[in-house]
Amino acid sequence: MADKSEKTKARLPRGFADRSADDIRAVEKMMATIRGVYELYGFEPVEQPLIEYTDALGKFLPDQDRPNEGVFSFQDDDDQWLSLRYDLTAPTARFVAENYERLPKPYRSYRSGWVFRNEKPGPGRFRQFMQFDADTVGTPGVAADAEMAMMMADVMEALGIKRGDYVIRVNNRKVLDGVLEAIGLGGDENAGRRLTVLRAIDKLDKLGPDGVKLLLGKGRWDGGKEGEGDFTKGAGLSEQSISVLEPILLFRRNAETITIAIEGDEPNNPRFEEITRDQLRTKKHSDQAQTIIDAFGAENASALGYIRAVFFKVGGDFSANMSSYDGYRELCDIAAMAHAAEYGADRVLIDPSVVRGLEYYTGPVYEAELLAEIPNEDGQIVRFGSVGGGGRYDGLVSRFRGEPVPATGFSIGVSRLMTALKNLGKLDTSDVIAPVVVLVMDKDTESLGRYQKMVAELRAAGIRSEMYLGGAGMKAQLKYADRRGSPVAIIQGGDERAKGEVQIKDLIEGARMSAEIADNAEWRAARPAQVTVAESELVGEVGKILAAQAADRAKGGA
Amino acid sequence: MADKSEKTKARLPRGFADRSADDIRAVEKMMATIRGVYELYGFEPVEQPLIEYTDALGKFLPDQDRPNEGVFSFQDDDDQWLSLRYDLTAPTARFVAENYERLPKPYRSYRSGWVFRNEKPGPGRFRQFMQFDADTVGTPGVAADAEMAMMMADVMEALGIKRGDYVIRVNNRKVLDGVLEAIGLGGDENAGRRLTVLRAIDKLDKLGPDGVKLLLGKGRWDGGKEGEGDFTKGAGLSEQSISVLEPILLFRRNAETITIAIEGDEPNNPRFEEITRDQLRTKKHSDQAQTIIDAFGAENASALGYIRAVFFKVGGDFSANMSSYDGYRELCDIAAMAHAAEYGADRVLIDPSVVRGLEYYTGPVYEAELLAEIPNEDGQIVRFGSVGGGGRYDGLVSRFRGEPVPATGFSIGVSRLMTALKNLGKLDTSDVIAPVVVLVMDKDTESLGRYQKMVAELRAAGIRSEMYLGGAGMKAQLKYADRRGSPVAIIQGGDERAKGEVQIKDLIEGARMSAEIADNAEWRAARPAQVTVAESELVGEVGKILAAQAADRAKGGA
Repeated sequence: MADKSEKTKARLPRGFADRSADDIRAVEKMMATIRGVYELYGFEPVEQPLIEYTDALGKFLPDQDRPNEGVFSFQDDDDQWLSLRYDLTAPTARFVAENYERLPKPYRSYRSGWVFRNEKPGPGRFRQFMQFDADTVGTPGVAADAEMAMMMADVMEALGIKRGDYVIRVNNRKVLDGVLEAIGLGGDENAGRRLTVLRAIDKLDKLGPDGVKLLLGKGRWDGGKEGEGDFTKGAGLSEQSISVLEPILLFRRNAETITIAIEGDEPNNPRFEEITRDQLRTKKHSDQAQTIIDAFGAENASALGYIRAVFFKVGGDFSANMSSYDGYRELCDIAAMAHAAEYGADRVLIDPSVVRGLEYYTGPVYEAELLAEIPNEDGQIVRFGSVGGGGRYDGLVSRFRGEPVPATGFSIGVSRLMTALKNLGKLDTSDVIAPVVVLVMDKDTESLGRYQKMVAELRAAGIRSEMYLGGAGMKAQLKYADRRGSPVAIIQGGDERAKGEVQIKDLIEGARMSAEIADNAEWRAARPAQVTVAESELVGEVGKILAAQAADRAKGGA
Repeated sequence: MADKSEKTKARLPRGFADRSADDIRAVEKMMATIRGVYELYGFEPVEQPLIEYTDALGKFLPDQDRPNEGVFSFQDDDDQWLSLRYDLTAPTARFVAENYERLPKPYRSYRSGWVFRNEKPGPGRFRQFMQFDADTVGTPGVAADAEMAMMMADVMEALGIKRGDYVIRVNNRKVLDGVLEAIGLGGDENAGRRLTVLRAIDKLDKLGPDGVKLLLGKGRWDGGKEGEGDFTKGAGLSEQSISVLEPILLFRRNAETITIAIEGDEPNNPRFEEITRDQLRTKKHSDQAQTIIDAFGAENASALGYIRAVFFKVGGDFSANMSSYDGYRELCDIAAMAHAAEYGADRVLIDPSVVRGLEYYTGPVYEAELLAEIPNEDGQIVRFGSVGGGGRYDGLVSRFRGEPVPATGFSIGVSRLMTALKNLGKLDTSDVIAPVVVLVMDKDTESLGRYQKMVAELRAAGIRSEMYLGGAGMKAQLKYADRRGSPVAIIQGGDERAKGEVQIKDLIEGARMSAEIADNAEWRAARPAQVTVAESELVGEVGKILAAQAADRAKGGA
């Protein structure tokens, strides 16, 4: 045994955490529900290992400035570089590419597992965390993206989150790219700056429009004021460019007017109709506007109009940038399909301010947001925000195959969603009952065998139970049972054994009575919540007490 | 998009594997059962991250000669070394040491998860694999070890493995250490050689006594003959020393006689009674022998006597090596407790040839062995062998605390056990039904919305279903449904839509009829297993077909 001076320190590296029984059970419960929805949609489980060749994962992570780009990497025996996966999408792309011929296409799959980011940890920000993804590979049609958005909505509701307490926001990278091109950030040479801008907009949720504008310009102090906290360097856009992007940042605050883009014959020739909420109610708008509202619903028709207007006003030329127009049309298709399948804008909402942080998205992106104001991981009561998202990544499988393999998918942040559900009271694990403890009064082998038989009988009846295994006396054993939260303790000393009896203590009732009975003498006299029965009645009697406790809990008592 | 010349190769590093839907579902099912047993015994889930400080994990792996000792390691930003865990025990020890004060003691916990070995992969031997462990920390009493052995037996039976098709073998490292000391391998300076000997004996299952004897001596050729396959260097023991160890290797073949060690007053003064099976049946043995048989059961009384005799014959001096005698006494206690709790030697068997490969064990070790002859991971029909094991590791938590913290626990090799259960027909996942596929006959947004509504209605009724998302024609879509193993396909083209109808194809019945009807014309005329119903009857009709298919499956038909 090591002496104190040379002993190893028991500690975890920064950004890693142990998981408690309560968290494990809550996550199990939550994941079973999510899995149920994925299965219902026809997705199949498939899992990749946690380690891949570094080049197979590619480099698509936000934290690009750091030496190993946010990834844990190490060399194999043959000097090839291996990495711990940073998400589940890149390994999925490798898997599909490797097994492409034998898979049914489109290929629907789901997977959960740990991913790793070699980034600076912070509150609620870990270097190991769990994701739960669903992906459809092998179809370019946005019906697949629309389905992803609707499935995310179904997941939220299956988890007990009420309609109105969440929303799935949908945007398209192609549209955003068009706006960026309009402010001179087009072309391969601006890829890095484009990404910085996208990541600034991705923080809209957290920082609000003014904070994001600082990040688009010179930069921002974490503390909110100059000199407070760390400084994050900005994208260095001009005032003029920032003002072009501003409408995107203000989208969520512009709910007063409905903007309908009435299509002309040409992509570059839209006509807009502005309708107030009052006019909408009283149907004081054109038949053309009504046709569009019928196709998309009023809210999404307006969001699409807003996007069209932003693009139009900044001089974005759809005919010179058909990819942007395609992106806009794809959003129209998604909105129309969601509307036809009766998923309204209260569930699937087109929103031009959604970007997602990862570099590999090529088309529609979507994000699940919790609107409820509940404590987040730092304990602050806030609008909880994003619990997952995804998008189309048409280039990721193609990297391996040299032919187009379109794909789309989303990822749920498991701990984040679990925290939210717990705070919403939607993940109750109080149905897990602590074990009955059989106390050890005599420690000879024969007695231990007898106590062991008692627990074996209780277990055979499905009653969770254990024999106390430590070396302590009776008082400490009862304290142990208390600490475990045990419902019942079983005691058989020499006297009871001689009579063929056992004592059964109802620890829940005992604790309740102990709280109510002030006087110590009275307590001792009452010997509350304890019965002595014949050994043969042990299992039946314990069963009765557990049933009574369950009834109390159901009544909200105890 | 990358052109063909520069595309990345989609491949996995050696020793890593993707998991199929079938394997994932089988493992889920198996783990739920194991978890149920652990919970019933009062164990609580707790999980550690996959990355720990290298020094916190310690170095207890078999593959000591390799540069990084079988562990994947890398440096953190602050130059400290991190490693991927190589088992779940070392992280558990770190966790318990770090949280010792706040945990109830003894502390019963369980956990499952991936572990990593940076070793040479082979058939059925991966560099990432899953373990499912249970541990009790904070008690020196072997009641905890006995409980582990009994719980392993319960796990086997809960998984459907019949009594007699498995056995939990129990030994004690202290006893073995005494024998090794007797042949001159005592002391710290021989720790490495001792380990080589233990690991040779650990291969008894695979190599048999003769193979192990080669490994104890000069070494062994993998191919079985000189010059065939790789050469494994042996422990270099003398013929004399090997002959001392031989009875241990032959234990499993010595079932003809019952050897009872009748205790004298002194540890060094046993008396032995040899009883033939016939004599045992006809009770032609002494009353003293009967007392011992009553305490342990005949088989385990004999195993204990055999151990005592081996030790005695090699001149092992218990009074000079009280630790060995303690080890023997602990085995007696375990056997007595198991016997008292009615776990016979057909479930918990004392066996001096069990060692387990890990260095950190300090006392009782135990191993779950499947006796059934079924295909292993390499496809060979063999006695399947070990599916898990463990032992007492009193030094592992103490490393951190500088005070004794005794502990014991076991680990189940998840994939290995899953392979065994599948081959035994105990993990049927055929209750998972593939999704109903709604074919896409028209691809306009309005039609897609309508197909989307059909799947939404089917899902609302709990029927797993999906809309076909690819771009292919009807024939290819039916092929897709076939490839998925779909039970039913839904078709609505222009004609059906005009009449407000849908076609429903029973694909299982269709395939059956197609196999039976030889003539193609006859087939077309019959239009087998297809009905056309009103759109409003879609869900009800699909439900009926699925129920009929389920009934067929239950009858063993289709």
